[in-house]
Amino acid sequence: MTRIVAQPLSRENFAPFGDVIDMGGDNRYPINGGKAMRYHDLATAEAMGPNARVLISMVRGTPYEMPLKLTMVERHPLGSQAFIPLSPRPFLVVVCHDAEDGPDEPHAFIAAPGQGINYRRNLWHGVLTPIGEEQDFLIIDRGGDGSNLEEFHFSHPYEIHLP
Amino acid sequence: MTRIVAQPLSRENFAPFGDVIDMGGDNRYPINGGKAMRYHDLATAEAMGPNARVLISMVRGTPYEMPLKLTMVERHPLGSQAFIPLSPRPFLVVVCHDAEDGPDEPHAFIAAPGQGINYRRNLWHGVLTPIGEEQDFLIIDRGGDGSNLEEFHFSHPYEIHLP
Repeated sequence: MTRIVAQPLSRENFAPFGDVIDMGGDNRYPINGGKAMRYHDLATAEAMGPNARVLISMVRGTPYEMPLKLTMVERHPLGSQAFIPLSPRPFLVVVCHDAEDGPDEPHAFIAAPGQGINYRRNLWHGVLTPIGEEQDFLIIDRGGDGSNLEEFHFSHPYEIHLP
Repeated sequence: MTRIVAQPLSRENFAPFGDVIDMGGDNRYPINGGKAMRYHDLATAEAMGPNARVLISMVRGTPYEMPLKLTMVERHPLGSQAFIPLSPRPFLVVVCHDAEDGPDEPHAFIAAPGQGINYRRNLWHGVLTPIGEEQDFLIIDRGGDGSNLEEFHFSHPYEIHLP
């Protein structure tokens, strides 16, 4: 199996794939008479197609064994999809650029505790992958009619290692 | 000052104002081959008006002294606004029905640890009100052009008490 080592997630290395959702950005300003600091516009939730709307959901994920044997990725042609952890633990993020006949070789990242991500619309990505413990997330993604899920199964699985 | 006692937040008592965002709903189903449970469609993020889009932001709020002296509420005519706590602590939620000449008498709720809320579009509500400690939240609300903030200052403040 091709071995891939996950990198620490950052705005810079994730920029080709989507947004990092954390308090590390520059676009911040005080609100409510100075009682709160808003970290503004970290990501846009995108929803298109018939009867599209942006949904707020939650998910409770069970952990995966590491190294991860990656056999498939999926994508959502009609909307972005964000996962924000509700407990400060790392999780694994796997994404692929699109190639001519399916996803290209995977890129893997470890989100630091407190970091969430927003997958750009139609980006190939792995399923939600907590590490070590059960973990809850907020999901912001697209609801509506039409087909919004495409899966790709690799003929040769990849093995994703933590750093 | 008129004294109001906050009630524990529930789907039922908050239904006239918006959505409770937690894992207590009935609309849940397994995803990812049974490795995760999705608590689906807890709320819809609504955004209308010129160049409207749904934003994902964060906010760090400082606590307010209790009982709260409530002097103003605000509303957003062009979109809903959700606050989901990123640490499991309670916070205070204040909302008002609309009356003929401004907001009606406030209703106050205590969100249990882990509960977030989505204010319906154009609902009068108080500012973000952590209790006891600084607290971080995810915000899902509306970006775009046009005026999306209206404030109302009460001639006689209310005093909001914890239960």
